[in-house]
Amino acid sequence: MRTRAEELAVQCGARLEISGIAVSDLERKRSGHVPADLLTTDAMELVRRPSTDIVVELIGGMEPAGRLVRTALEEKKPVVTANKALLASFEGVELRTLAMRQGVDLLYEASVAGAIPLVRALRESLTGERIHRVMGIVNGTTNYILNRMSEQGSDFDTALSEAQAKGFAERDPTADIEGHDAAAKAAILAGVAFGFDVASPDVMREGITAVSRVDIDFAQQLGYSIKPLAVIERTGDDALSVRVHPSLVHRSHPLAGVRDAFNAVFIEGEAAGELMLYGQGAGGLPSASAVVGDLIDAVRNWSAGTTAPSAIRRPARLLPVSEVRARYCVSLEVADRPGVLAAVSTVFADHDVSIRALEQAGHDTGARLLLVTHFAREGDVQATLQELDDLEVVRRIGAVLRIVGDRE
Amino acid sequence: MRTRAEELAVQCGARLEISGIAVSDLERKRSGHVPADLLTTDAMELVRRPSTDIVVELIGGMEPAGRLVRTALEEKKPVVTANKALLASFEGVELRTLAMRQGVDLLYEASVAGAIPLVRALRESLTGERIHRVMGIVNGTTNYILNRMSEQGSDFDTALSEAQAKGFAERDPTADIEGHDAAAKAAILAGVAFGFDVASPDVMREGITAVSRVDIDFAQQLGYSIKPLAVIERTGDDALSVRVHPSLVHRSHPLAGVRDAFNAVFIEGEAAGELMLYGQGAGGLPSASAVVGDLIDAVRNWSAGTTAPSAIRRPARLLPVSEVRARYCVSLEVADRPGVLAAVSTVFADHDVSIRALEQAGHDTGARLLLVTHFAREGDVQATLQELDDLEVVRRIGAVLRIVGDRE
Repeated sequence: MRTRAEELAVQCGARLEISGIAVSDLERKRSGHVPADLLTTDAMELVRRPSTDIVVELIGGMEPAGRLVRTALEEKKPVVTANKALLASFEGVELRTLAMRQGVDLLYEASVAGAIPLVRALRESLTGERIHRVMGIVNGTTNYILNRMSEQGSDFDTALSEAQAKGFAERDPTADIEGHDAAAKAAILAGVAFGFDVASPDVMREGITAVSRVDIDFAQQLGYSIKPLAVIERTGDDALSVRVHPSLVHRSHPLAGVRDAFNAVFIEGEAAGELMLYGQGAGGLPSASAVVGDLIDAVRNWSAGTTAPSAIRRPARLLPVSEVRARYCVSLEVADRPGVLAAVSTVFADHDVSIRALEQAGHDTGARLLLVTHFAREGDVQATLQELDDLEVVRRIGAVLRIVGDRE
Repeated sequence: MRTRAEELAVQCGARLEISGIAVSDLERKRSGHVPADLLTTDAMELVRRPSTDIVVELIGGMEPAGRLVRTALEEKKPVVTANKALLASFEGVELRTLAMRQGVDLLYEASVAGAIPLVRALRESLTGERIHRVMGIVNGTTNYILNRMSEQGSDFDTALSEAQAKGFAERDPTADIEGHDAAAKAAILAGVAFGFDVASPDVMREGITAVSRVDIDFAQQLGYSIKPLAVIERTGDDALSVRVHPSLVHRSHPLAGVRDAFNAVFIEGEAAGELMLYGQGAGGLPSASAVVGDLIDAVRNWSAGTTAPSAIRRPARLLPVSEVRARYCVSLEVADRPGVLAAVSTVFADHDVSIRALEQAGHDTGARLLLVTHFAREGDVQATLQELDDLEVVRRIGAVLRIVGDRE
């Protein structure tokens, strides 16, 4: 039987040799056998070294990773990276352009949804496909939290503590629960699936911290599950809406069944129809699997003097957030007295937001009003909310959740 | 904005021109604009024509498709095909060998699970991955039938008629309900995921016709869904078990939620962990999407003088069916009198098959006994069934369903 290294050599068409490994601390104890003479603290020298043919960047963050990747591409050395922050930045857009201009691979399967072969599926299998929409659970932490809240009846803080105890959430959970992590992945997916240059700051972003048990109960009554979604949607020939927010998906939708910290991305294409890719979105081994897949690709392409296909690049024309249309589920804490309902519904009507379903529930110090709208413009809904906030009878505006997965 | 043809040209790195289209009837009315001078009835001449660089075979069946594909490969012309019957035959194994020897692409994403980018994911993204098991709902017709039986309480014949009325099942449904279609796909997947040369006749195959409403009710009580699965499982370093049969999967398993005529393939890898790819497994447009993806690949590789990676080929060592281990759910119609249970359990015990759960249900003319075993050898279970069949108190042996998705 062949060893794994020999199999890899056959798969790559070339024997791989590690030129060097740049680390920040030479003395740190490492598991496994890492020959000391491969280690260096001078990452730039390693990238520039003539014997280095391919660069794998697993540092993360903006610098020095950005500088190293740029140098590698300038020297026409293919780069495999898992660096979502870098790729989703404006600099990431420039690096992709540079890679294309240099005719060299910049591969980043591990940057979105771990081992799920998502980037490759979009870049290669679906390259002839006109994609309408991509909806993804791309952050496992927030899926875990919302799943615990739905299935165990936990409140947000308890679910977050559990996620931290299980190692699904960082001690500082901001990047996950405020949607920054998902926004970076949405920006990368917009590029891969639609060929648009989008960076994180372009993505409309809403965290999951406003979601309460009451919202979840109401959603469940209506037949919906609450999921942390990144939505990238074609809104015209050259226009796109890219956003990240807690969303309601109908329980019959495949995304509704994605539990725990799993990731899944649902793709709607003109010819391919509905596709979903599901798997572990994080963790050392799944990410390593994606990196190795890319590395084999990079070696094969490099040997053949070719590169992986990349989406045709278009200037990004993003739909203003106010123009996005969806159905909404709105939760309001109101005074418990006659006339409140009339006052509230008048505000909705004044802004052309039509109410589809409504429920009033008891509450300690007042009442809670839960409403589902027909399809409405985000701008109109926001104007409605602003005016509601000024109403004396409205004590607090709770979660505003978009229903996703159905068509207007 | 670019036309789709122009986009395709950019994606391929070359402008595609249709050299000719071989048809069986020149006069047949065709939808869309098909220039008459492209049509020919001489497929072999078209394949051999010097101006033909790449061949797309969408005839299906063994001959003349096999001869045409062989000729193309002998002339070093890449072939894109959706022909699962051919690929899963012994001739298919030879054709794959021929393609490798000739250094020319033989691409067949459309042959398994329609537009789901499964073949590419296994061949490219997971090429560095040690895969433990692949479990797939690869036949939409049988998934639809079992789903209707589970959710609507239909009996088998009603569900089959509905599937036929909806166009999910052929007028002669044998290939689907007897598992021939799934067995061909299992053989192809064994090659792509594990590098084993397996042909349809090597696959253990059981249809879904023996499944009754009672079996489904019992399974549901135990928390299982019934699914038509193809299972390809590593049983040793160089050994594989390849089989197709109705299976019980726990309702928390992602495969349990795959409804209607959708396909899904669940992959368990050493590093990648659990992955699932979901989508439409059949239909003209999804299949066309897969063919176009492959075609773009073929053109790109052909221009670069390279080929798509293929799994390392190993001689197939298939685990004899009698050695497969699983948990079983067995349904027996028995006489309704004392001592039956003792007689039946003695037979199980005599063959080392340990019973985990048991239920007795009323029945028109006797009683029905439903049993779940612990992990047991298929050979032992079959011996048990044979002896049960000889027992005077056992009137009929109903479904024997394997529980899949858990580990021993």
